[in-house]
Amino acid sequence: MSAAPDGPDGFGDDGFRDDGFRDDGFGDDGFGARLVRTTDALGTLCVGIDPHPSLLAEWGLTDDVDGLARFCDGCLAAFAGAVAVVKPQSAFFERHGSAGVAVLERLLAGFAGSPTLTLLDVKRGDIGSTMDGYADAYLGVGAPLGADAVTLSPYLGFGSLAPALGAAREAGRGVFVLARTSNPEGGPVQLADWAGRSVAQGIVDGAAAANAAAGAADGPLGDVGVVIGATHDHGLDLSALRGAVLAPGLGAQGAGPADVADRFAGLSGLVLPTASRSVLRAGPEPAALRGAAESLRDELAAARAAAG
Amino acid sequence: MSAAPDGPDGFGDDGFRDDGFRDDGFGDDGFGARLVRTTDALGTLCVGIDPHPSLLAEWGLTDDVDGLARFCDGCLAAFAGAVAVVKPQSAFFERHGSAGVAVLERLLAGFAGSPTLTLLDVKRGDIGSTMDGYADAYLGVGAPLGADAVTLSPYLGFGSLAPALGAAREAGRGVFVLARTSNPEGGPVQLADWAGRSVAQGIVDGAAAANAAAGAADGPLGDVGVVIGATHDHGLDLSALRGAVLAPGLGAQGAGPADVADRFAGLSGLVLPTASRSVLRAGPEPAALRGAAESLRDELAAARAAAG
Repeated sequence: MSAAPDGPDGFGDDGFRDDGFRDDGFGDDGFGARLVRTTDALGTLCVGIDPHPSLLAEWGLTDDVDGLARFCDGCLAAFAGAVAVVKPQSAFFERHGSAGVAVLERLLAGFAGSPTLTLLDVKRGDIGSTMDGYADAYLGVGAPLGADAVTLSPYLGFGSLAPALGAAREAGRGVFVLARTSNPEGGPVQLADWAGRSVAQGIVDGAAAANAAAGAADGPLGDVGVVIGATHDHGLDLSALRGAVLAPGLGAQGAGPADVADRFAGLSGLVLPTASRSVLRAGPEPAALRGAAESLRDELAAARAAAG
Repeated sequence: MSAAPDGPDGFGDDGFRDDGFRDDGFGDDGFGARLVRTTDALGTLCVGIDPHPSLLAEWGLTDDVDGLARFCDGCLAAFAGAVAVVKPQSAFFERHGSAGVAVLERLLAGFAGSPTLTLLDVKRGDIGSTMDGYADAYLGVGAPLGADAVTLSPYLGFGSLAPALGAAREAGRGVFVLARTSNPEGGPVQLADWAGRSVAQGIVDGAAAANAAAGAADGPLGDVGVVIGATHDHGLDLSALRGAVLAPGLGAQGAGPADVADRFAGLSGLVLPTASRSVLRAGPEPAALRGAAESLRDELAAARAAAG
């Protein structure tokens, strides 16, 4: 099952893996280890692939499945091999029905042939055998919508996500659980108190415990990350996480590279700052899109280096 | 846009609407009003359509898209016109990828030609334009996966769901927001305290306020419901809701019809007790499935009458 690369860096001259698709498990190479290796090579920027109707229009595309597919072709040409992670937003595919979901399947398969990792933003969360169903869809070995990682929503409790965490680990994939989002409406849930700590801190602590139980203390990074908005102070203790933080809000939503470096200074793990519109509005030309992503990626690296 | 029925009860002899499909808005006829009318005629039972792999096997079907489609054919033949509401579980369609989602589209269209309402269990929840995307997919006028109602998950705050509530109201559809689920892991989120009340009570109060703002006090029932597990005491004040409660957990999960009547005695609105496996295991013969659903439906009506 191991997808050991051929060349010195594992990638051919075209930026695609020498060994073709990774689609069926990654042997002992967990998501955390793959994320560290990929961000070491390509920086920490995560580019959101958000085919919003207004962006389709800006790119001169129709708001239908054909426009969606062309949008995705542009993103694949621009971002594969240029950034460490892309984050397709499932809502913008689902709004085109099953035909839109088929475009998402092709997009995921396309990036699976490149060094760039996919983090599918689906925010799924359920219990028991239903959670198993979502794990089968997105996280299991051979999952039809398999991504390198997905986002999960924990309203039913961090513990309810266990089937997904197990399936992800087995397949070498990862998860990012919502903890503290940047929208103003999130407080009455995420900042509520349970046994002396906030709900959001409880999610972070659950992720830390899952990473510790999987032996992340001895490895480079656990497979369970969290989502924390980059646009305001989060007030969370991230010192025990040993996982990645997905930090949406770079660019159009208001946070700059220096803000990100400041806000996650105490983290044990790594931050994936995420930008969508601020990069995507450089399209539709793949070269311009790629240039916008590379500029932001390099700004982030400089801010990170300046912060020590 | 009004889908005014022809006959005295709006349905032909075959149990299907005289006016064919409802797929593009319902004029001034909101979801709450339609739900009251439908449950008055067909009882309050909601049957979960959960094509779990073990159920596919029990029905002698293959665990693939073909088996899924046959399972759905059986459910449509059995439940259309027999129960007020069916609740397809999206996870069990998504696990077959986009081809599975296409089966879900056909299932929803099939029930749209019958008096039975569809409540699609997708538990979506996001913010801003992404929430708009989910509303486009499931709730807007002409939505490709349009159901009479969907479930939503409020980890990002009740207020973050506003775009979906607005889209639903405009299209004559409804939503059911997760409040207090029956799984043991839910407490550390749903029972956490915010400003002196639990997160779950805050969701119920948000739904009540949305129904009041939409004028539900003067009408039969608002379009915003909540999800509260039927298997344990919920401890919530439901007196101001003026909406429906989806109450999973009937049958296989442990609650009986009398429990349901007791637990929701103080509600202003109506309860939709939901059973899945306890009905579905009577399959695959549609007549047997329909008989199981009708028996449970009638038991619920008797328990409701006994409780006054």
